[in-house]
Amino acid sequence: MRKPRLMTPGPSPVPEDVLLELARPVIHHRSVEARAVVSEVVDGLKYAFQTRNDVLILASSGTGSMEAAVVNTVPAGSKAIVLDAGWFASRWGVLCQTFGVEPVVVPTEWGRPVEPEKVANALAEHPDAVAVFGTLSETSTGTGHPVEAIGRVVAGTSAIFVVDGISGVGAMECRTDEWGVDVLCVGSQKALMMPPGLAFLAVSPKAWGKIDAFDSPSYYFNLKLARKSMKDFTTPFTPAHTLIGALKVALGRIRAEGIEAVWARHRRMGEACRAGIEALGLELFSSRPAEGMTVFRVPGGLKDSEIRAGLSERFGITTIGGQDRLKGQIVRIGHMGYTDELDVVAGLAALEMVLGDLGFEVEPGSAVTAAQRALMGQHATPPGGIGR
Amino acid sequence: MRKPRLMTPGPSPVPEDVLLELARPVIHHRSVEARAVVSEVVDGLKYAFQTRNDVLILASSGTGSMEAAVVNTVPAGSKAIVLDAGWFASRWGVLCQTFGVEPVVVPTEWGRPVEPEKVANALAEHPDAVAVFGTLSETSTGTGHPVEAIGRVVAGTSAIFVVDGISGVGAMECRTDEWGVDVLCVGSQKALMMPPGLAFLAVSPKAWGKIDAFDSPSYYFNLKLARKSMKDFTTPFTPAHTLIGALKVALGRIRAEGIEAVWARHRRMGEACRAGIEALGLELFSSRPAEGMTVFRVPGGLKDSEIRAGLSERFGITTIGGQDRLKGQIVRIGHMGYTDELDVVAGLAALEMVLGDLGFEVEPGSAVTAAQRALMGQHATPPGGIGR
Repeated sequence: MRKPRLMTPGPSPVPEDVLLELARPVIHHRSVEARAVVSEVVDGLKYAFQTRNDVLILASSGTGSMEAAVVNTVPAGSKAIVLDAGWFASRWGVLCQTFGVEPVVVPTEWGRPVEPEKVANALAEHPDAVAVFGTLSETSTGTGHPVEAIGRVVAGTSAIFVVDGISGVGAMECRTDEWGVDVLCVGSQKALMMPPGLAFLAVSPKAWGKIDAFDSPSYYFNLKLARKSMKDFTTPFTPAHTLIGALKVALGRIRAEGIEAVWARHRRMGEACRAGIEALGLELFSSRPAEGMTVFRVPGGLKDSEIRAGLSERFGITTIGGQDRLKGQIVRIGHMGYTDELDVVAGLAALEMVLGDLGFEVEPGSAVTAAQRALMGQHATPPGGIGR
Repeated sequence: MRKPRLMTPGPSPVPEDVLLELARPVIHHRSVEARAVVSEVVDGLKYAFQTRNDVLILASSGTGSMEAAVVNTVPAGSKAIVLDAGWFASRWGVLCQTFGVEPVVVPTEWGRPVEPEKVANALAEHPDAVAVFGTLSETSTGTGHPVEAIGRVVAGTSAIFVVDGISGVGAMECRTDEWGVDVLCVGSQKALMMPPGLAFLAVSPKAWGKIDAFDSPSYYFNLKLARKSMKDFTTPFTPAHTLIGALKVALGRIRAEGIEAVWARHRRMGEACRAGIEALGLELFSSRPAEGMTVFRVPGGLKDSEIRAGLSERFGITTIGGQDRLKGQIVRIGHMGYTDELDVVAGLAALEMVLGDLGFEVEPGSAVTAAQRALMGQHATPPGGIGR
């Protein structure tokens, strides 16, 4: 028996009660019943995103919300700043080019955080930039970016701050309104504990100003249509209502645990996983790690594929390797959403054994012990006090 | 107790085994396991669509597939013929205008079928039209259009034939390749017996010729990216994999029943429902009814809302009224997908009783009897011989 353990940075495991909700009969999406579900889900999303801004629901993957953010806020022929620090951040640049927007790329070495001063410089040099496109948690490198500090920089300009929070929201502190995030993009299949198929946007009044200023060449992703429908708690086109019903249950879990406690749990899991990885003598890839995933460099003499195959074949654990220029160089372990401290401990135990089997010098128990120490230290922190 | 009976022209009821499949744990969408599911689903879709063309899977509602069809095949500044015969067909025109395509509208009175000769005339007058956008089953009016005959007309030209089969495919005969449908758009929540959230496209070599001839300003809906990923049985962006897994089960049902038998069942249900409606002295809205739904005019002295509320409050039956210019004038009853002859009989029995309660002169049992007669006559037809 190999018990399946999904430890990728999305999709992530879905709680049993959320899965069972998916099995409920389909209802009509324009019914009073369906609108009540959407209304409750919107409230739950606002809480999870820490926003009072409008929240919109799309039937798409997270990328759909990124496309919607680009095509609705920046007219073709205009300029936008792209904080390119990884595979997914570079997608902002591709989207800009696809829709005739000139991307001003602020490059950051993959694995390092974007420096807010560089953003300030780019904005000073390009005061006509309509938007700054950034990332909360870069899934390709496992890096958490300083969204709060960048938000402060952008807030003082006429540009809006658009953040890809797809793998970040729910796993990392994100105070959308307080931090000046004008458009937040989120996907369902990461820390929100849901299957893929839904995407969300939180849109600030400053962002609506940009959106209302021109006729966007968009239809399926037209946010003006979405705003209008959402006033009646529905969507312009048939919503993926089965998923929305399940999301209600997942968001109920987040509310019951408390968003600060959810962030703190992810922080503890991140600390424990990193402590374990480092105790094994492995090198963390990121200098400012995201909390919902841990990325380590493949040690010399080993292949990422054999480590991942060992985890999968012996223990049923699914992890993921590197993308693009990081192919073969890193292993990415997810610990987000419906994942607890013991899942991390178990994952590290498996990694120890697999590395040992592959001939890598391992002190049995070292990663697990280091993780437990981290967790015990963390437990001493007063509840609610997550600091930063 | 009111047993819920979903009788709208989408969403439609989902079989219990398909619902339970949704409750299975999430797997990673790039895994070997996931690709095997996608491969099987693509085969099943090809069978259901009766096509050997490429089939692509989108995480979107059906409208997403319509947008993809427009934006990928017709460059901005070009011309396309729009067979506008209802609310959803008019969406083709809106999509064209959104993306800078000039729509040449061939108007048809709502409720009547598009006349193939008019399509031929439009093509003769506009030989530079890149595409003809039509509809298999117009959900707003309950009309089935002569796709086969229109396909013959378009096949002789350089234009491609794009068909919105969202509420039609699975409920009405559709021989994609034989009938010359170059791009078929389908949604999951109609006769495919699935919840909403997935859309599909079948794309012919002739259509790929148009698509490959220019750089489409699309990203999420870029069909060249989708084709490339589908060669590895995946999608460019995270697929709604839970839904795809359930679709495998739904398509297994279609294959087990046989697509011709599925079409024949819908034809019998359509005939029975229409016979019942006419026996009540009600007027059918369409002169060429679709098979997956029946639309009748609200009789004088009654309101659509009171008929629909009666069905819902007394019997738990969800139906839908008219859209746009048909608001208040019609009632639309769906009988597609996971619906059988007895569901139609039950629906008619409810309608009789509700109309009687509302003071409409009803001979109890008349609709039900007429439907049964139609079903008994149809049962006499030799199996497999569905004719046309």
